[in-house]
Amino acid sequence: VTTVHAVGIDVGGTKAYGVALDAGLNRIGELRLPTPNDPDGLVDVLARIAEHLGGDGPVGLGVPGLVRRDGVLVSAPNVAGLRQSPIRELLAERLGREVRIDNDNTLAAVAEWQVGAGRGVQEMVLVGLGTGIGGGYISGGQIRRGTNGFAGEFGHMVVDPTGPECPCGRHGCWERFASGSGLAYLARLAAVKGQLRGVLQAVGHIDAIRGEHVRTAAGDGDAESLAVIDTFARWMALGLMNLTNALDPELIVISGGLSDDPELFLPPIERHFRHAVFAGEDRTLPRIAFAELGPSAGAIGAALLSLGY
Amino acid sequence: VTTVHAVGIDVGGTKAYGVALDAGLNRIGELRLPTPNDPDGLVDVLARIAEHLGGDGPVGLGVPGLVRRDGVLVSAPNVAGLRQSPIRELLAERLGREVRIDNDNTLAAVAEWQVGAGRGVQEMVLVGLGTGIGGGYISGGQIRRGTNGFAGEFGHMVVDPTGPECPCGRHGCWERFASGSGLAYLARLAAVKGQLRGVLQAVGHIDAIRGEHVRTAAGDGDAESLAVIDTFARWMALGLMNLTNALDPELIVISGGLSDDPELFLPPIERHFRHAVFAGEDRTLPRIAFAELGPSAGAIGAALLSLGY
Repeated sequence: VTTVHAVGIDVGGTKAYGVALDAGLNRIGELRLPTPNDPDGLVDVLARIAEHLGGDGPVGLGVPGLVRRDGVLVSAPNVAGLRQSPIRELLAERLGREVRIDNDNTLAAVAEWQVGAGRGVQEMVLVGLGTGIGGGYISGGQIRRGTNGFAGEFGHMVVDPTGPECPCGRHGCWERFASGSGLAYLARLAAVKGQLRGVLQAVGHIDAIRGEHVRTAAGDGDAESLAVIDTFARWMALGLMNLTNALDPELIVISGGLSDDPELFLPPIERHFRHAVFAGEDRTLPRIAFAELGPSAGAIGAALLSLGY
Repeated sequence: VTTVHAVGIDVGGTKAYGVALDAGLNRIGELRLPTPNDPDGLVDVLARIAEHLGGDGPVGLGVPGLVRRDGVLVSAPNVAGLRQSPIRELLAERLGREVRIDNDNTLAAVAEWQVGAGRGVQEMVLVGLGTGIGGGYISGGQIRRGTNGFAGEFGHMVVDPTGPECPCGRHGCWERFASGSGLAYLARLAAVKGQLRGVLQAVGHIDAIRGEHVRTAAGDGDAESLAVIDTFARWMALGLMNLTNALDPELIVISGGLSDDPELFLPPIERHFRHAVFAGEDRTLPRIAFAELGPSAGAIGAALLSLGY
C-alpha cells in the first residue's frame, strides 16, 4: 500500500480535480467531479474528493481568483460557489484537516517548476492561457507572491489602450488578445474583414466562431486560419517580451488550454519573440516551453502547497 | 578623521558623479566631473574621482547600460567611452582595487531601498525617469537581477503597438510616453493639435518644445500645460498598473529627472493609478513615492554595491 503524502484540488469553473501524491511526488490517485454553483454543494464535493483521495495531512486548494497571503480569497468571479463563502474554513471544519489555498496559476507555476517543465530553473515565468491569462513567477528559486499575494496577474497588463474593452473595465488588456478568448476575438475580427472564409462557411455565423475552429482549420493547413494563429502569436510574443524586459527569466512556461498544441503555436510565438525583445542581440533569450503537466498542474501545485511550498 | 567605508561612481552621459560613504552610510565626500567621450579619458576621470574620494576597498560603478551578472557591460548606447572598452578591468588595473559594476537604475533601486524612500520595504519597484525609463525591483527583501542581470528594463514594455517608433526598433514602448522624452512627445503632439498655445508662442516652434517648458507653464497654472501633464500622468499610471499586476509591490518609487517635482506629478499619477489597477477594490494598492536621494541615488547605490549589496 502506497502512503498518501499530499492531496491537492484544483477548483475550476466547471470541474474540481483532485490528486494524491506519494512521497516521490508521483500521482497515485485522482478524482474529477463537476463544480456545484452553490457554496454548500461545493464544500460537499471538495470534501468527497479529499476523502476519496485519502491521507490525513493538510489539503491544498487552487482557485481561479485573488487569494491574499493570509489565505483569504477576495475575488473569484468565475466560480459562483466560491464567491459567497469562506471555502477554506468551511472545508477545514468539515474535514477536520488544515486547508491551504492559493491562486490556481500561482500553484501551476509551483508545480511546473518543481516537477514539470521548469525543474532546476531559478528564474521562471508561467503564463497560463485560459479564458483569460493568469500566471506566476519564480525568482531566486522562490515563488514570488508580492505584497498582497496577487503577483502574476499578467493578463491585465494593458498592451493597447485603444483595444477592446475587458470585463475588468479597462481596454486592451493582454488577455483580450492572447488568451483563449483572445484567439476567438482575433478570429472574429479576421472574419469581419472578409478573411477566414473557410471557417466562417463551416460555422455559419461570425459570432459562433471559437478558438478551436481556427485551431482545427489551421491544423488542416487553412492559410487564413494560420494567419490568425500568426497574429495571435504576435500578441503572445509582445506580452512575453514585456515580461522578459521586466523579469529577465531563464524560462517561460506556457500552460493552460492552448498548451496542448505546441506544434501549432510555439514556432510562430518563438519567431515573433526573437524580433521583439529589447537588446536581443546582447542577451541570452529565455527559453519558451509548453507546460509538461497539462491540466493537472493546478492540482499538483495545490498538493505541493499542502506540503508547504 | 572619518574613515571612508565605501566609494561609488555613477557614470552618466554628461557627468560622472562619485560619493564616499562612512560606516553609517552617510555621505562624507563627493566629486562630479564631465564624462569624456573616449575610453582613455573616461578611465582617467573615474580614477581621479576614486582617488579624490579615498578609501582602499572595492569601487562601485553605476552605468546606463545592460550589465551581465558576471560584471560584463554588454550595452551602453548613450556613453561613447563605455561602449568600446572593458571599463571595469581598465579601472581596476589603474587603481589596484577591485571594481564592481551594475546598471544605474538597479543601483538606484538598491539605494532608495536601503537608505531612501524604500527603507524597510520587502516588495518595491523603482521606476527611473530619464530620457528613457529604467528600473529595478526588490522582492522578498532582495534586489532581483533576473537571469542575465537585465531585469527592470520597464521602459521597453510595449503599451501601444501603434504608438511612435522607439530607438530600440519597436513601437509604443512605455518610455515613448512616460519618460522625459515622452513628456516632450506628448507636448509636441498637443501643439500639433492646436493646443499648448502659450508654450508654443513662448518657444516659437513645435520642435523646440521640451518637457521643462510644459512643467514651467503648468507650474504657473497654464491649463493646456496641465492637460499635457495629465495625459503624461495617465501613461505613467498605465505602466505602473502593469507593473503592479505583474509584481504586486508594496511601494513604487519614482526617481530620475522628473522626481524633483512631486507636487506637479504625483497627484494626477495617483488619481489615474487608482482607476487603473485590476481588482483595485479588493487589494491594498501600492504606495507611490518620489525618490528621496534625488540624482545621488545611482552613486550611493554604486557605493552600496562596493559593499556587496
